Amino acid sequence: MKKLFIVGIGPGSREHMTLKAVEILKKVDTVVGYNYYIDLIRDLIEDKEIISTGMRGEIERCKLAIEAVKNGKDTAIISTGDAGIYGMAGPIYEMAKGIDIEVVPGVTAAFSAASELGAPIMHDFAIISLSDLLTPWELIKSRIEAAAKSDFVISLYNPRSKNRQSQIVEAFEIISKYKDGNTPVGIVRHSGRKGREIKISTVKDIDFEEIDMMTVIIIGNKESFMRDGKIITPRGYDI
Amino acid sequence: MKKLFIVGIGPGSREHMTLKAVEILKKVDTVVGYNYYIDLIRDLIEDKEIISTGMRGEIERCKLAIEAVKNGKDTAIISTGDAGIYGMAGPIYEMAKGIDIEVVPGVTAAFSAASELGAPIMHDFAIISLSDLLTPWELIKSRIEAAAKSDFVISLYNPRSKNRQSQIVEAFEIISKYKDGNTPVGIVRHSGRKGREIKISTVKDIDFEEIDMMTVIIIGNKESFMRDGKIITPRGYDI
Repeated sequence: MKKLFIVGIGPGSREHMTLKAVEILKKVDTVVGYNYYIDLIRDLIEDKEIISTGMRGEIERCKLAIEAVKNGKDTAIISTGDAGIYGMAGPIYEMAKGIDIEVVPGVTAAFSAASELGAPIMHDFAIISLSDLLTPWELIKSRIEAAAKSDFVISLYNPRSKNRQSQIVEAFEIISKYKDGNTPVGIVRHSGRKGREIKISTVKDIDFEEIDMMTVIIIGNKESFMRDGKIITPRGYDI
Repeated sequence: MKKLFIVGIGPGSREHMTLKAVEILKKVDTVVGYNYYIDLIRDLIEDKEIISTGMRGEIERCKLAIEAVKNGKDTAIISTGDAGIYGMAGPIYEMAKGIDIEVVPGVTAAFSAASELGAPIMHDFAIISLSDLLTPWELIKSRIEAAAKSDFVISLYNPRSKNRQSQIVEAFEIISKYKDGNTPVGIVRHSGRKGREIKISTVKDIDFEEIDMMTVIIIGNKESFMRDGKIITPRGYDI
């Protein structure tokens, strides 16, 4: 019986992949993924059957991966970061029946970005995607409000694209109601991979023009502060 | 100039470590950590100077790690999971001045547990620690309430110990006000390492006696369901 591995490849650079993700990609017959993500691991899978499709082809890729397993191939379908958050684990489990599945966890963008910003998370923490393609905007807004009001550190995924420019503005309007304007905000583009750009700003000074779909944002809590170009959120120890 | 690496070793089994975490542990002169976590990587660091202390020795370990760097040793201080959430990154950045620091991200327990439960996270998601040793219980409760009310998938860290038994009961009283009693709950003990135990229950049926400090809990959102022993939270695709 062949198996379908759902593999989180981490943020993109080889060093942040887990040993297991590398091992599985080397072992399977077929690898399925979004073009751009396949390119991040192409040197690992040169001898494999590679099935790649374009943006928004998520469901097609799931179908092709399930089909490959049914055709007798050990198969990996890849997500960047961890496949269990906004990744391929959900749709595969929704669609696949009667095949053996294993999820291989990975380093998600928020933790990769946090490691580059210092220690901005450290405490109770919420991840919210600003993409309203699959989720009602009202629900997303209510989550931003709840997280900001109860002083979570917040990470925003999919913050802004060519066709979604207003969501990030609205998100920060909500956040500004509850978080001080001087709260540190980390903005990392291409976190954990080639082309990385790190910026540190504040809730009141953030420049939305710098933000795109390759950007992850981390907004501190009431205790967060900046020092020597890093964002630090105390855990609460008496230091 | 010597360097201090703050290394997330992932949930514990070697396969879930990143390539970089392994590389750094092999490269440094000195490794500092909690006894129990040092044991998880002892075979990797046999030739190193090892400084380990007991539970609640966090600040002492930070001091010893900073001192080691100042004494001319490349040093790694380890956390399980990712060091940037409830780990050593915060206190190190708070305490260390004038030394070179790098955080190496890792797979945090929620994502390791999620991979073992199926695809329970998938969507907007909050991590909350139930430990009130360093955080007021009223603040923690307000975060549980906010996250449950706005239908986040929730992961609870440090859910219950010998001396903290009431917090998990109160947490589920709050969660029950907003989440249906049949909402799936994943309970994973020793996720991603030897001795792993996976249980799936519901908000109304969860057995607190099964939960300890080695347990991570994931509570679904309104769309989450169980199938074939897995928890699945849809991303929202039309499948």
